[in-house]
Amino acid sequence: MRKLNHIAVVGVTGYTGFELARILVRHPGVETSTFYMRDTQGAKCLDELFPQLRGRGDAPLHTFSVDAITASSAGTAFLATPHDVSATLAPSLVAAGMRVVDLSGAFRFRSAETFTNWYKLAAPPANLLAEAAYGVPEIYADKIKDARIVANPGCYATSVILALRPLTDAGWIAADSGVVCDCKSGASGAGKELRRDLQFVEVDENFKAYNLFSHRHTPEILEHTGLSETQVIFSTHLLPISRGILSTIYVNLESQHTGEAIEALYRKFYAGRAMVRIWPAGSLPELQHVTHTNFCDIGFVLDKTGRRLVSVSCLDNLGKGAAGQAVQNFNHILGIEEHTALQ
Amino acid sequence: MRKLNHIAVVGVTGYTGFELARILVRHPGVETSTFYMRDTQGAKCLDELFPQLRGRGDAPLHTFSVDAITASSAGTAFLATPHDVSATLAPSLVAAGMRVVDLSGAFRFRSAETFTNWYKLAAPPANLLAEAAYGVPEIYADKIKDARIVANPGCYATSVILALRPLTDAGWIAADSGVVCDCKSGASGAGKELRRDLQFVEVDENFKAYNLFSHRHTPEILEHTGLSETQVIFSTHLLPISRGILSTIYVNLESQHTGEAIEALYRKFYAGRAMVRIWPAGSLPELQHVTHTNFCDIGFVLDKTGRRLVSVSCLDNLGKGAAGQAVQNFNHILGIEEHTALQ
Amino acid sequence: MRKLNHIAVVGVTGYTGFELARILVRHPGVETSTFYMRDTQGAKCLDELFPQLRGRGDAPLHTFSVDAITASSAGTAFLATPHDVSATLAPSLVAAGMRVVDLSGAFRFRSAETFTNWYKLAAPPANLLAEAAYGVPEIYADKIKDARIVANPGCYATSVILALRPLTDAGWIAADSGVVCDCKSGASGAGKELRRDLQFVEVDENFKAYNLFSHRHTPEILEHTGLSETQVIFSTHLLPISRGILSTIYVNLESQHTGEAIEALYRKFYAGRAMVRIWPAGSLPELQHVTHTNFCDIGFVLDKTGRRLVSVSCLDNLGKGAAGQAVQNFNHILGIEEHTALQ
Amino acid sequence: MRKLNHIAVVGVTGYTGFELARILVRHPGVETSTFYMRDTQGAKCLDELFPQLRGRGDAPLHTFSVDAITASSAGTAFLATPHDVSATLAPSLVAAGMRVVDLSGAFRFRSAETFTNWYKLAAPPANLLAEAAYGVPEIYADKIKDARIVANPGCYATSVILALRPLTDAGWIAADSGVVCDCKSGASGAGKELRRDLQFVEVDENFKAYNLFSHRHTPEILEHTGLSETQVIFSTHLLPISRGILSTIYVNLESQHTGEAIEALYRKFYAGRAMVRIWPAGSLPELQHVTHTNFCDIGFVLDKTGRRLVSVSCLDNLGKGAAGQAVQNFNHILGIEEHTALQ
Repeated sequence: MRKLNHIAVVGVTGYTGFELARILVRHPGVETSTFYMRDTQGAKCLDELFPQLRGRGDAPLHTFSVDAITASSAGTAFLATPHDVSATLAPSLVAAGMRVVDLSGAFRFRSAETFTNWYKLAAPPANLLAEAAYGVPEIYADKIKDARIVANPGCYATSVILALRPLTDAGWIAADSGVVCDCKSGASGAGKELRRDLQFVEVDENFKAYNLFSHRHTPEILEHTGLSETQVIFSTHLLPISRGILSTIYVNLESQHTGEAIEALYRKFYAGRAMVRIWPAGSLPELQHVTHTNFCDIGFVLDKTGRRLVSVSCLDNLGKGAAGQAVQNFNHILGIEEHTALQ
Repeated sequence: MRKLNHIAVVGVTGYTGFELARILVRHPGVETSTFYMRDTQGAKCLDELFPQLRGRGDAPLHTFSVDAITASSAGTAFLATPHDVSATLAPSLVAAGMRVVDLSGAFRFRSAETFTNWYKLAAPPANLLAEAAYGVPEIYADKIKDARIVANPGCYATSVILALRPLTDAGWIAADSGVVCDCKSGASGAGKELRRDLQFVEVDENFKAYNLFSHRHTPEILEHTGLSETQVIFSTHLLPISRGILSTIYVNLESQHTGEAIEALYRKFYAGRAMVRIWPAGSLPELQHVTHTNFCDIGFVLDKTGRRLVSVSCLDNLGKGAAGQAVQNFNHILGIEEHTALQ
Repeated sequence: MRKLNHIAVVGVTGYTGFELARILVRHPGVETSTFYMRDTQGAKCLDELFPQLRGRGDAPLHTFSVDAITASSAGTAFLATPHDVSATLAPSLVAAGMRVVDLSGAFRFRSAETFTNWYKLAAPPANLLAEAAYGVPEIYADKIKDARIVANPGCYATSVILALRPLTDAGWIAADSGVVCDCKSGASGAGKELRRDLQFVEVDENFKAYNLFSHRHTPEILEHTGLSETQVIFSTHLLPISRGILSTIYVNLESQHTGEAIEALYRKFYAGRAMVRIWPAGSLPELQHVTHTNFCDIGFVLDKTGRRLVSVSCLDNLGKGAAGQAVQNFNHILGIEEHTALQ
Repeated sequence: MRKLNHIAVVGVTGYTGFELARILVRHPGVETSTFYMRDTQGAKCLDELFPQLRGRGDAPLHTFSVDAITASSAGTAFLATPHDVSATLAPSLVAAGMRVVDLSGAFRFRSAETFTNWYKLAAPPANLLAEAAYGVPEIYADKIKDARIVANPGCYATSVILALRPLTDAGWIAADSGVVCDCKSGASGAGKELRRDLQFVEVDENFKAYNLFSHRHTPEILEHTGLSETQVIFSTHLLPISRGILSTIYVNLESQHTGEAIEALYRKFYAGRAMVRIWPAGSLPELQHVTHTNFCDIGFVLDKTGRRLVSVSCLDNLGKGAAGQAVQNFNHILGIEEHTALQ
């Protein structure tokens, strides 16, 4: 008999997986947790691999196999696995009666074609894509709580969608006007893969743009804001810091608005949502306000014409941008307060 | 009898002034150099105040006074002084027959009103504003070489103007379309004034936007690109690094162009100009390529419609963005190779 | 009627005070908390001054006065105030029946003369110095739980004392042999005072030694290890990071020992103490393992003669080195688990 | 006919090799320079691989082979190659009549056994080890200028030897007393090999000790100070910066000395040596004073007994610690001013 608060966490090698582990080992709603990785290097417990976790519990660590997971009592599985692994693993787990929170890109799109075009990988089964919930709980909580698969969003996508969605839902963006999303992320967002351009000396005291017009989070942004590809420019930059995304978003409004009206729009949209914090009109959040938290902070400045809006959205790419949001989605599955274990 | 290569450098306390000193003490074209500061703390030579300079010469240091400077044989004066000090000091030096390279904002505008509106200070005499050359030698070399006052540009302004000017001169920017200049700078750009928000702990592992719609370099950008205030959005961000500016500039083209055509446009504009390096179409520079140099590197990416262009412009805010460019202007005054002492 | 879990926190302006606030607003054992600062800038709640705290409670903020504090029901006061303020404030609060956890240096020494010599300030009353507990709970828990004043130790001193005390108690350090404590700290340890040498550009990509033979934490180390001033060299260095202290400590052993014996000595000394983690012989902790935690991690390497020992001790200077340890001391006062709110 | 100022540079892939290239492309004493690497990726010139070098000359780049090098007119070869490559390559080049400046560890010891014990590699021929000069020109200039092979020292070793040698030559260190060398280096010192522990996220906001009692630079320090292995403790730490080594060195003096006497000893030892800068007694250098330079700065503090000395030695590990010192050695070979191209 599966229990939702018996959890399996697959893939704790990367930065996201480790952050997930760090949060879940002290989650008060979890009854049992088991961690899986491809190569446990002989370790039996998480803290043998991660000395930072010593003294914070001794969660069991197992070599990954589908059978091992489905044979357990786990009712919820977190997948911090590569896109292609998630694409094949999630269906098996769902078939075995488990709920899945997937942190890869595999289930983020309704269209298999979109996934295949952007990720150059075979897409998961169409029916699962169709039913998967997109895991921004501030927007899709109703669907998330019952979904068999929750596709945890991309870090950049979360930051941009949370800033734009109140505006697009209200129809306040001028039709066909360009929306520039100039986004900057710390290096942990690029993952833990060994890459020359992620070595310390290459990132330190440096800054650069990358993946212009080609970043994989683009289709998520389009799908969940309703903006068109020709309308949005989404650019990404690498900050010489470990954690955090700040997106500066340039919008032309369809008519003149006041700062008060825009602040009110944001506040109404996120009313009752603890994890999104709206800043007073004319003031802006900065990364230190949100790193090591699950908050997304949003502020904005309006020019004197009341037609040009710059929104700034900040979050921790490992927190609200990945592991924290996964736990927030899990809290919705459990039906408990969404910020449990996240403050 | 004044000699142009006898130089006086006023204000070596700040980061820009120190960088200027560091370059000038080894400039092969300088015959004598004297440094002035308000409070020499009893030091007679530069290296008594700046141990980094030990063993690199023992340039004399004097307490600042107009009389001391004008009594010397100096033919060229560099002013790394506050805006209001430059505004009153430069006229005296010019009257005494000296050439002035001013690194403050005092002489950057033809209009006294623009200066006063943006800087909230009394403007220098109108005739001097009218005759001062704006010190981007890639654009205004002819004027610079004979000008009595060269207004060394703002660091952000230099980076934006160098990226936009070839496009505006060619008329390739779509009329009335928005031009977004999303700029990021290291902390030395904010100067050496003691400020809470510039303490290490406040900047480290942080990132933020500031001065949206209100940065003082705005009018320089407008004046030297010909774009209108309602067309340009110029935003500035603080990077957790010491040196470097990277500007990401979003432009809508008036018609479809190829990458080759745009690269050719840039290359032609900067032909023979050693200090601006154009990157091959589709490739982008990063800050490490230009820090501790006087280069401005420009690259760009075009979207598949050939209508949306993102230009990335990088420079060292203390190099090409300030002290280095000042020396480059000085080289034009001397009539020697513009990169002397800058490689 | 005072209650120990009604708390007053004085001084939340600095990095330590803010960290204390951050921990205490979510401390499950605290019933009411009130924060005091000299100048509240009109704010009524903590999160008006610290936007990072928004959504984490709305603890009341008051202008500081002795009367305001003593008139409240608070049974415990935390003082994150300057040394001289603590020296005069603590006696008043104690006289009013409160328990005090003082984070300054005012009560760290039994001898008024030591305080005055090192701090150049008037010492607190001798009777209070005599009765104050030195707040390293791993060593002095029995005294701390009943003390009217707990002197929270210096950050460097905590890191050094925790590494040396097991060795000095066991008599394993060779008599009269030198003990070198080469310590390195992040910039938040220097406090939030505006100082030129703490500006970002001065600290970034830099590293330096400071206060050799003169650091104020020296007498704490001597008093709580029993080593003599001529035996210990304590040096401090500034790391270009925000948080964390790593101390490399060089000891000559009085006789040959094995790594196993030394590890066993450490483990026995800290048995049952959750916040000190001993690493296996021959392995060493690093700062990332402890920053943003209340842990002190200790590891060591022995040379092949078994006579020369290098111990490495790591902690977060704002955590176990200051605010975290203050809360740990408070937990002993309350008689609850010492790591409450610290994991 | 070989000419000493026709140079071949082998291995420009790593940080040291690149720094060497950066210095040599603007060395006024070099007549021709050719660069070699194992895999040129089709590039014909250095700046095709290193866009930072664009506009600074177009030095030819060739695929590495012994024949290609010996067939050229080059009289001097710089080897920025792995230890084992240098060990076999240098003898061939020497046999062909070239002078070699080797930046690896292959020729740093007179004893083949020492090399093999510490590097676990086959040693070069004994006669070449015997005749190779150890490349600290402040100590061994006479031998360097005529040596067929100059073994460029280790970065840590340079920093420690320069601080200790004046003291050991004078016999001022107390016999048999311990000498603690606590050294800290930026990440470029670890080379450019892809390693998990050198990824940005692992180094950023971190600090750790490594290789205690086992660092390969140990035998260099012993050989060139004359101190014994049981007397010296040499520890190394990784700083979260790109460049720079700071060594804090603890010495017990054989008798009481004044600060003036020690400063005089240092100044006399380094008289006429531009690249070592001695600081006034009681003042200390910091890393920013020497990064991006070829200086080694040395300062010290003496305790009040006049018996305990702490010396602090700073250099840039890629400058005076590697590429810069290699060029300094080359200048001695050419018989020109030793700081040519290094200021």
